[in-house]
Amino acid sequence: MLYLLFLADIKVNGFACKSEANISASDFAFEGLAKPGIINSSVGSVVTTANVEKIPGLNTLGISLARLDYAPGGLNPPHTHPRATEIVFVLEGELDVGFITTANKLISKTIKKGETFVFPRGLVHFQMNNGDKAAAALAAFNSQLPGTQSIALTLFTATPAVPDDVLTKAFQVGTKEINKIKDKLAPKKS
Amino acid sequence: MLYLLFLADIKVNGFACKSEANISASDFAFEGLAKPGIINSSVGSVVTTANVEKIPGLNTLGISLARLDYAPGGLNPPHTHPRATEIVFVLEGELDVGFITTANKLISKTIKKGETFVFPRGLVHFQMNNGDKAAAALAAFNSQLPGTQSIALTLFTATPAVPDDVLTKAFQVGTKEINKIKDKLAPKKS
Amino acid sequence: MLYLLFLADIKVNGFACKSEANISASDFAFEGLAKPGIINSSVGSVVTTANVEKIPGLNTLGISLARLDYAPGGLNPPHTHPRATEIVFVLEGELDVGFITTANKLISKTIKKGETFVFPRGLVHFQMNNGDKAAAALAAFNSQLPGTQSIALTLFTATPAVPDDVLTKAFQVGTKEINKIKDKLAPKKS
Amino acid sequence: MLYLLFLADIKVNGFACKSEANISASDFAFEGLAKPGIINSSVGSVVTTANVEKIPGLNTLGISLARLDYAPGGLNPPHTHPRATEIVFVLEGELDVGFITTANKLISKTIKKGETFVFPRGLVHFQMNNGDKAAAALAAFNSQLPGTQSIALTLFTATPAVPDDVLTKAFQVGTKEINKIKDKLAPKKS
Amino acid sequence: MLYLLFLADIKVNGFACKSEANISASDFAFEGLAKPGIINSSVGSVVTTANVEKIPGLNTLGISLARLDYAPGGLNPPHTHPRATEIVFVLEGELDVGFITTANKLISKTIKKGETFVFPRGLVHFQMNNGDKAAAALAAFNSQLPGTQSIALTLFTATPAVPDDVLTKAFQVGTKEINKIKDKLAPKKS
Amino acid sequence: MLYLLFLADIKVNGFACKSEANISASDFAFEGLAKPGIINSSVGSVVTTANVEKIPGLNTLGISLARLDYAPGGLNPPHTHPRATEIVFVLEGELDVGFITTANKLISKTIKKGETFVFPRGLVHFQMNNGDKAAAALAAFNSQLPGTQSIALTLFTATPAVPDDVLTKAFQVGTKEINKIKDKLAPKKS
Repeated sequence: MLYLLFLADIKVNGFACKSEANISASDFAFEGLAKPGIINSSVGSVVTTANVEKIPGLNTLGISLARLDYAPGGLNPPHTHPRATEIVFVLEGELDVGFITTANKLISKTIKKGETFVFPRGLVHFQMNNGDKAAAALAAFNSQLPGTQSIALTLFTATPAVPDDVLTKAFQVGTKEINKIKDKLAPKKS
Repeated sequence: MLYLLFLADIKVNGFACKSEANISASDFAFEGLAKPGIINSSVGSVVTTANVEKIPGLNTLGISLARLDYAPGGLNPPHTHPRATEIVFVLEGELDVGFITTANKLISKTIKKGETFVFPRGLVHFQMNNGDKAAAALAAFNSQLPGTQSIALTLFTATPAVPDDVLTKAFQVGTKEINKIKDKLAPKKS
Repeated sequence: MLYLLFLADIKVNGFACKSEANISASDFAFEGLAKPGIINSSVGSVVTTANVEKIPGLNTLGISLARLDYAPGGLNPPHTHPRATEIVFVLEGELDVGFITTANKLISKTIKKGETFVFPRGLVHFQMNNGDKAAAALAAFNSQLPGTQSIALTLFTATPAVPDDVLTKAFQVGTKEINKIKDKLAPKKS
Repeated sequence: MLYLLFLADIKVNGFACKSEANISASDFAFEGLAKPGIINSSVGSVVTTANVEKIPGLNTLGISLARLDYAPGGLNPPHTHPRATEIVFVLEGELDVGFITTANKLISKTIKKGETFVFPRGLVHFQMNNGDKAAAALAAFNSQLPGTQSIALTLFTATPAVPDDVLTKAFQVGTKEINKIKDKLAPKKS
Repeated sequence: MLYLLFLADIKVNGFACKSEANISASDFAFEGLAKPGIINSSVGSVVTTANVEKIPGLNTLGISLARLDYAPGGLNPPHTHPRATEIVFVLEGELDVGFITTANKLISKTIKKGETFVFPRGLVHFQMNNGDKAAAALAAFNSQLPGTQSIALTLFTATPAVPDDVLTKAFQVGTKEINKIKDKLAPKKS
Repeated sequence: MLYLLFLADIKVNGFACKSEANISASDFAFEGLAKPGIINSSVGSVVTTANVEKIPGLNTLGISLARLDYAPGGLNPPHTHPRATEIVFVLEGELDVGFITTANKLISKTIKKGETFVFPRGLVHFQMNNGDKAAAALAAFNSQLPGTQSIALTLFTATPAVPDDVLTKAFQVGTKEINKIKDKLAPKKS
């Protein structure tokens, strides 16, 4: 709630709340989504956030944005947002999008420029650019800081590592396959 | 919450909740924001909503979108959303945007393509296209149906009419000025 | 939640939370609504708040009160509370009250001593004393600090000023009428 | 949220939600608090509620009122509201009011006409009229239906009865004392 | 929400929020429920809590546990949790459990090892071990700090004392019976 | 909220709400967690739920339980609950438990009989029985129907299938490895 702006400067939720005298338009504005993010990941996509860490005025207001950029063939791999529902709007190109329900049903669709799609709170979802040119989307979340868990990275690159027997049992394959995935997903040394 | 999908088809919040067997991607998708809305209002702007009335799958999920289109010189006049904070992202052109705090301070800024701005919950705000070409923005709300009250229309065109003495006293002018505004804002007869 | 009282003194939501040993009845009591507020506004009404700024014990509890006093002919002009529903109870006299829905329908009624009326969250509403003697009401809100935006003052007296072209376009009149309203509503110099 | 008013008539939370075309001021108004309730209880007080059961328009809005009337010496005996914080405003007379914290500390005060006092969510509280004339108060709750448990009646007059060994152990007295209280509190036969 | 872990160490709700670098498994674990609590109360039961005061990682997460131990014939006397619903699971022995609704109806049952029972938010409830051996239960609450008011102690042992005339009127007995209960429930001097 | 019990029988959230006259203890009780679930999965564990689908009285109350049973070496594989935080209590045996934060840090611990551990809302977590005898745990959730997504099954066994290129790109391996996992995780034909 904005009323905190009328009080002495304090922290709420760990973020600064400015007094009325000190707030300005810059607390509520952000220019960082204007340009495509630089894609240098192996999956061919990048996420640029516009949450309370970037826009102080969002504190306590329960909403945020992100920009998603995809190279041709790029994937925003299966992930969850522990604290938010997401709705995307395609800015450029087209995307194959999908989420899986708690009854293990895949709900998917190809969406084009100007179209929207909803990923309900907490469910695993992904977007893939199967076109031959770059794509981009804007995502809105009903949390000031929705959080993200990229499923493959969470399971295969956490520190310390998730125990091998958890992974071999969960995926029902041997340590050879598990180690292969771990190797592929490990951050590259320069 | 999505769990209602696993039950028999029912209504929650007055909107349909489908059973798991009956949901499909079309319940979570919407194409209606892809094209600019047709501007035929006297203020030179139009709002196209993408809320739970258009996207059934949004029911209980607490988020929605809208597309805002502005002719050159067009204004989305001062209004409030009784149930949501809004964050806008400029799709095309540039906009002069602002909101007024409960301490009567105007917080305003000119934002360009790709830039974002926040309008905190329930506060009066507006956007104006002072450029010489069309502008457009995407708006996200943390409500599945945020509601809108356009201030001038609310006060001068409600049915039945807000009493004249309320308006003359509130604006401290005579019935002549009040009636002039009422006439100008009244829906045009064809 | 009251449990903060059992901890060391801290601030929550920017308001003090006292430890158990330090709280007393005075943290939960307020005498400031007992007498009518002094009416010296041009609209003939005054609001006296009893929120968390006056009653520290309300912090985190989600409720507050206000006393409304009206001279004969006095108006509590159209306004919104961004963060609360309001319910009023007439203490003295009678009032013409109303709110406008998001479908632009005026819901209004004359209420007398001991009668109550509801103004739903975030909607524009007003009360007017059309009787020939003073009136008073008690208002309850489901927020510890509901906030208020008086519509005419918000649009015509904010600092800095809302741009003239926003106002002329919103109300569809010329700068002459806009400036007249601004002049009338401007704080009087002494 | 009021948006349900714009849809077909349905039930939400078990209460009717009318369509926009069907709502009227009477859905938001209530006259039942205007006159003192009739006191015919052994404790010398009576509560008249103004909640969603009486005011249909309160549905989903999270607030309600009640009127409390006290004969000289009358007591609103120790009770809790399972779903709300309460704030009282004295309409007539004076009251000794108090609540007990979860650390077993009594917070109490004598409040007079026009004064207010807060009873935090879920805590046991009471009001007593120790004056020699009638008293009355208005109570606001941040729930559309706060619920009430009058402690003595809950323990000694429930149907079926709370087992004797629960009561003798809880109060550390014999069945003689327990039965005496049960007899005294039992509804009178005519 | 856990995101506070990623910030500098701060306090939220009066409890510490650690930065990501500083959290460890010990912030989310608790061993204190493993052994039966020591019963030395006159009612023959003891409650061991596992809330945010014991498990720092529960801060903002809205859940907690407690262990309940009962001697043969032991009673967890009628009480309320102002901020939570409770659900119990019997670990050992069997229990007579019950709650009273706001319509003064007793809902009760005998539950055995491995069985569960719900006590809705804020309602008076109790458990009694009518068996001839020790019993134990695990209780879960949907609050990180649900709070407890033991009814008899709240009314008869608060500091300062609840006034005698409140108690005599509430229970409809004389000061002799009230004083007898007070004496019995008073903390024993050593 | 329980107040719905006092009204005519209706549905709220898609679950039945009984009138006061019709509720009984059986609406709030459940015996289904008393015995270990039968483990016939390839991972060596089974979950038995005690949510609103089993206990009608939990409707609107925001809490539920589950019983977790593990064979020696059994794993409750990495999964999320989209709508709840979880806290577990070990009933028998010992468990290696862990969750991964949104900063990709594994927080893990071995917990023994009577010990508890928290899995914050929406985060991927698991439990494994590395002992040589059966283990069991009770889990509490702050949702009446928390939902579960078992990560490996969600990605490799959904219907229709998550596209191969999404999986090969997410895990950075070829279709051979992906198909091997799919084969292993596919429901067995009888």
